[in-house]
Amino acid sequence: MTLSQPPVQVTQDPPLGDEELQAMHAYWRACNYLAAGMIYLRANPLLREPLQADHFKRRLLGHWGSDPGQSFTLVHLNRLIRQRDLNVMFISGPGHGAPATLAHAYLEGRYSEIYPDRAQDEAGMQRFFRLFSFPGGIGSHCTPETPGSIHEGGELGYSLSHGYGAVFDNPDLVAAVMVGDGEAETGPLATSWHSNKFLNPVRDGAVLPILHLNGYKIANPTILARIPREELEALLTGYGHRPYFVEGDEPQAMHRAMAATMDRCFDEIAAIQRRAREEGNLERPRWPMIVLRSPKGWTGPRMVDGHRVEGYWRAHQVPVADPATNPANLKVVETWLRGYRPEELFDEKGAPMPFLRALAPEGDRRISANPHANGGLLCKALDMPDFRDYAVQVKAPAATYLSPTAVLGTFLRDVMARNMNNFRLFGPDETASNKLTAVYEVSPKTWMAETLPVDEDGGELAHDGRVMEMLSEHTLEGWLEGYVLTGRHGFFATYEAFVHVIDSMFNQHAKWLEKAKLELSWRAPIPSLNLLITSLVWRQDHNGFTHQDPGFLDVVCNKSPEVVRVYLPPDANCLLSVADHCLRTRDYVNVIVADKQPHLQYLDLDSAIKHCTKGIGIWEWASTDHGSEPDVVIACAGDVATMEALAAVQILKERCEGLKIRFVNVVDLFRLMPDTDHPHGLSDRDFDSLFTTDKPVIFNFHSYATLVHKLTYRRRNHENIHVHGYQEKGSINTPFELAMVNQIDRFHLAIDAIDRVPALQSRGAHVKEWLRDQIIVHMDHAHAEGIDREDIRDWTWSA
Amino acid sequence: MTLSQPPVQVTQDPPLGDEELQAMHAYWRACNYLAAGMIYLRANPLLREPLQADHFKRRLLGHWGSDPGQSFTLVHLNRLIRQRDLNVMFISGPGHGAPATLAHAYLEGRYSEIYPDRAQDEAGMQRFFRLFSFPGGIGSHCTPETPGSIHEGGELGYSLSHGYGAVFDNPDLVAAVMVGDGEAETGPLATSWHSNKFLNPVRDGAVLPILHLNGYKIANPTILARIPREELEALLTGYGHRPYFVEGDEPQAMHRAMAATMDRCFDEIAAIQRRAREEGNLERPRWPMIVLRSPKGWTGPRMVDGHRVEGYWRAHQVPVADPATNPANLKVVETWLRGYRPEELFDEKGAPMPFLRALAPEGDRRISANPHANGGLLCKALDMPDFRDYAVQVKAPAATYLSPTAVLGTFLRDVMARNMNNFRLFGPDETASNKLTAVYEVSPKTWMAETLPVDEDGGELAHDGRVMEMLSEHTLEGWLEGYVLTGRHGFFATYEAFVHVIDSMFNQHAKWLEKAKLELSWRAPIPSLNLLITSLVWRQDHNGFTHQDPGFLDVVCNKSPEVVRVYLPPDANCLLSVADHCLRTRDYVNVIVADKQPHLQYLDLDSAIKHCTKGIGIWEWASTDHGSEPDVVIACAGDVATMEALAAVQILKERCEGLKIRFVNVVDLFRLMPDTDHPHGLSDRDFDSLFTTDKPVIFNFHSYATLVHKLTYRRRNHENIHVHGYQEKGSINTPFELAMVNQIDRFHLAIDAIDRVPALQSRGAHVKEWLRDQIIVHMDHAHAEGIDREDIRDWTWSA
Repeated sequence: MTLSQPPVQVTQDPPLGDEELQAMHAYWRACNYLAAGMIYLRANPLLREPLQADHFKRRLLGHWGSDPGQSFTLVHLNRLIRQRDLNVMFISGPGHGAPATLAHAYLEGRYSEIYPDRAQDEAGMQRFFRLFSFPGGIGSHCTPETPGSIHEGGELGYSLSHGYGAVFDNPDLVAAVMVGDGEAETGPLATSWHSNKFLNPVRDGAVLPILHLNGYKIANPTILARIPREELEALLTGYGHRPYFVEGDEPQAMHRAMAATMDRCFDEIAAIQRRAREEGNLERPRWPMIVLRSPKGWTGPRMVDGHRVEGYWRAHQVPVADPATNPANLKVVETWLRGYRPEELFDEKGAPMPFLRALAPEGDRRISANPHANGGLLCKALDMPDFRDYAVQVKAPAATYLSPTAVLGTFLRDVMARNMNNFRLFGPDETASNKLTAVYEVSPKTWMAETLPVDEDGGELAHDGRVMEMLSEHTLEGWLEGYVLTGRHGFFATYEAFVHVIDSMFNQHAKWLEKAKLELSWRAPIPSLNLLITSLVWRQDHNGFTHQDPGFLDVVCNKSPEVVRVYLPPDANCLLSVADHCLRTRDYVNVIVADKQPHLQYLDLDSAIKHCTKGIGIWEWASTDHGSEPDVVIACAGDVATMEALAAVQILKERCEGLKIRFVNVVDLFRLMPDTDHPHGLSDRDFDSLFTTDKPVIFNFHSYATLVHKLTYRRRNHENIHVHGYQEKGSINTPFELAMVNQIDRFHLAIDAIDRVPALQSRGAHVKEWLRDQIIVHMDHAHAEGIDREDIRDWTWSA
Repeated sequence: MTLSQPPVQVTQDPPLGDEELQAMHAYWRACNYLAAGMIYLRANPLLREPLQADHFKRRLLGHWGSDPGQSFTLVHLNRLIRQRDLNVMFISGPGHGAPATLAHAYLEGRYSEIYPDRAQDEAGMQRFFRLFSFPGGIGSHCTPETPGSIHEGGELGYSLSHGYGAVFDNPDLVAAVMVGDGEAETGPLATSWHSNKFLNPVRDGAVLPILHLNGYKIANPTILARIPREELEALLTGYGHRPYFVEGDEPQAMHRAMAATMDRCFDEIAAIQRRAREEGNLERPRWPMIVLRSPKGWTGPRMVDGHRVEGYWRAHQVPVADPATNPANLKVVETWLRGYRPEELFDEKGAPMPFLRALAPEGDRRISANPHANGGLLCKALDMPDFRDYAVQVKAPAATYLSPTAVLGTFLRDVMARNMNNFRLFGPDETASNKLTAVYEVSPKTWMAETLPVDEDGGELAHDGRVMEMLSEHTLEGWLEGYVLTGRHGFFATYEAFVHVIDSMFNQHAKWLEKAKLELSWRAPIPSLNLLITSLVWRQDHNGFTHQDPGFLDVVCNKSPEVVRVYLPPDANCLLSVADHCLRTRDYVNVIVADKQPHLQYLDLDSAIKHCTKGIGIWEWASTDHGSEPDVVIACAGDVATMEALAAVQILKERCEGLKIRFVNVVDLFRLMPDTDHPHGLSDRDFDSLFTTDKPVIFNFHSYATLVHKLTYRRRNHENIHVHGYQEKGSINTPFELAMVNQIDRFHLAIDAIDRVPALQSRGAHVKEWLRDQIIVHMDHAHAEGIDREDIRDWTWSA
């Protein structure tokens, strides 16, 4: 690859005949007309009467600014799709660009197929206009309701990573990704340009980024529009692209330039793919991209009330605010809209003229109907190995230590092996750290950047690797979202504390899922997004306080019960059972909390399956109530929490003879909620039968204690539930010390149990004294200088 | 500015004399020796005996990889500081680079000043080594315990934005920011390069980025180290810098190259500042930067057990894992450590030799003692206008509509005016959208990129603007953190849903504050970080579902009660009172939730001050219990929640005569917690006297309902507290419709109240029927086609 060839402004002979150009221009006029109509009109949708005040919506809402540039791009993409029979998705990155996408979907007929009440006639158009930005109606981003879209754009920054996710393992697909120049300022977008180091031109499709330099955000110029041209070229070249500039505002010239540039870009893409696929040349190519510098609000009113609108930030939303009450401005709007000459574009009934229809691709080639944008349609179930084959032998509970994620790694390895074009593993430079290394036996990491001889020594890099590692949780999450939204399967493993980096992306994906699942029957279910949260708070032996944050679960629990699931498998066999389940589900975000460090194993395979299927249950072998009403319930969720709870039971068994303890472990966190609030919730009856209606419950929890209260506050016995969890206290600690300062350790649990059981109030006193001594001894031990780290591995369950 | 001058590998005549070079090299050897010692040794710290197995720590923890490159840079910075009497901070971006920074702080004597038990002698050094990565000891990032640091680095991506934040309004300061090439892959770092478009060379100091291309992350090569040199140059040039490359591994040559490059960079910085300050040339300069390409684990063992270590990812943590049990590897470590010739570096007592001490700057010029890195020392209180002067007149409650943030804007304007080098306002392209436009009357937005004539028409851009707008919440938050950590004041306003973008940054800042405040008496208190959360969930009239997420409060409430505060002022006067308070505080993150849309006003100034001072209180004028025990408590927190709760009271007053209602409003959310758990918590007695011990409480909450349960679950009357809040249901809705689908509207509240009051069970039946009708009517109304948005503004309180 060389940079020596400078970026080019394409000025070749026009590939567009005049007739085709005029037709395309008409198509664009139709798009712009529809976009403006959506913002303004509640009646007279085809302007068959003179425009009057009461034709306007009473509240004008919507975003005009980026629509014409996006429509312009779509018109030109359509030309290429038809001419070359291309398989193209469009991703609309600029915020609030929906009118452009909606107009295209409507002109392509796809919109009316899905929403027959918005047919291609005058009444349909009127309804289409009215519903836009109307309560309960059509949103001004590309919401899930938008056919042909996998990308909302309500929150900015993820267009490119979604585009890459969509084309991974889709060699025939091209994602044309319109990147807003506002969006381009976000961190996630800024680093996602580097996705091109992970795109393999043999196996994957192509992404064509189109940076839309329309110059302004809501009320500011954009940075990329206000740096020298050569600096922008350098930046995009530095990102690994070959940028082509299409700049101007005169439509005819712009059509010619865009057509020539699109031809060139798709030629280059084809050449890159041919070189890679036929000649085996896998040197990282310099993928083409387009910089479209066009005025914000292009073709809209230039000046309104003495202020500049077209080509300025004032074109961001509604260019003319008061046409219904200001006759002069009514005229401005009418002149503007009539300038598109709707009478040439729509027939008597209000349907697009045949010559326009002829410009749109047909069937599934329509961007608005591309099946990849409704990925569930194309989704193939994973070919799953039997997870039972990966089980670890557990002859006695709490007798052996194993890394749960290392075991999971062997299972994921074979999931990978059986689904080599349908499944990928994602992680930020941590797959090895997270002990999932077994997957490398079947597939190394994708790497299209340079390699060195030293990489042979454990680098695990390959052009066709299927493990995706980049030090950007944002990019990984974006890739994975794009991958599952187009119907494929994936698994993302990340450090617990830093999953907060993608809180907001998780929120947005959950919102998309909720709408798609509950309200849009035409959207087929897609594979769940599986998040493995590992390197957990309780084992941050040397990473310290910054790495201790188990609060992602609070974010997750705020989302719709229809689309989120949280699992805390206590050991490796449970993790296998949970992972197998999650990989088979659709339309969820599954969050699995499991550590990478060696932990005690409790359940043999059959018990694990039974336990995980129920999601919550009594561990009889650890209980002493023998089925009778217990004196106290010791409950737990999470690996270290479970170990400490068991150790507390052991202490109580030994030192408080006759105490009837029931031991409950929770895998599926939402079992704690009432069944009226969550599909996985337990009925009150079942909850009461597990947790009693009046006995003390000492609950040892992996995360912040309040989350358990949040889930159980409606339960009859709630006031007796005493939760121990992370208290935001920590440093570089031994695991056991960290447990103690946050009081989730065996001693504090045992003290709490004794305090809560009336029968132990007196006879427990000396036990408590002993327990307090233990705490002092252990903390002293931990702090004593020169004594090495006390580990937790000196403890096993004595049956 | 021109790009024509190509980036330069500096090869001028060496500015270093041989003697100085050798001394500096010795200093670097001392750093590297100390860094390696921290990782390995528990005894024999000066290698005065042959190294033996029991001299090693039993568990080897720590990160060697980036230390030598960072130390190398620090040695060279020290040369410049001494030679030119510079004021330099160092920000260590690469993860886990603390040994380098710690070694420098120790050699400069600063470390021992703060921690006298780690003196500059053999015993002190031994203790220093032992405590590193030892439980309860010294962390392997630059934790708050590290003198001279404002940047943890536990979570990656914020080094550059912290550096810029530090130098804003500090014209004499230079922040040398070491950017890790792993860190450089994160989104936040990738976009923060553009910070140079917001740095004014007259008023601000300078940032010198040093991109450390050491080539590897934990287990992967870095992207920037594996793209062609010319592509990297293009990228950095595109970011607006002039990159200088220092590349190699031969120490003597590298010292000469680094010295020459540093000279050149500081010359250029001086020239830029002179040009701007003396000649008034404010064209955006092309700031210099350094690319340091040095081997990972430089000077460490090259091969261990047949595997490449130096210059490969295996040098990331502990280069030799088993010296205590593997005699051959013990030899490897001994040879390595002795190669630094500690006997030449430390005197008999173990103190650094005088010739080394002479190389370090003195007093506050030492990087480890730079007062800007302990910003509280330099902090000046804001010169505050009297917030009472901005009060709005409220003659009757709930009679007038006003935008609370617009009122706040006038107050912030004058805060700004009085503190023109000590206060900034931050917001992602939304200051105007969030109605804080009054600030522009005293200061426009900072903008060093290009301007156009059209900007005169409402662009509000200026080189010396003090409103910081960039479409990156990450960068803004990073700037603000850097600004407050160096002792200045700021205010960050952002859309509620998208504050989740910086969840993780908030977490990390809160953790830093907790440590600094509770454990480090030498760190002076710093100004609080003030976050205004606006464009709230309940008024997303056209932005829809993606913009509806009030869950940031759940993230906040998980952090230490010592450092977080949450306020939900119900109207403009309360917002003024709260904002005034927050701007005066130290060492908190203050989260203020207040909307930008017009809302009803309730309290006159005096009442607002009293109410906010208490943080929670009964609104007598809205209550009907006249001081007696009520039948029901209607409580609320948040603007729309308060309005709907008041409307519910009005309905109940009118239709359930004689019902005794107590109306409670909550401003300070943590008043709900017990005083035993939070410094702002109410005692149980006070809580009970407000909320009763047995009467139904209908609580209308701004955010997700479960948060109130989380805060109140220990209260006596908790089982009678019924919370209404956002249920994750929404679309583009009218505000009133959105309230109804989430059941925080007046009708649902009134129904709930009737259901909970025993006395109303029978006589309330017809009222409930009427209320249910109202719900149907209003929802029909909202959905009816062609009917325009029903707003909430048709309602006022009838006293």
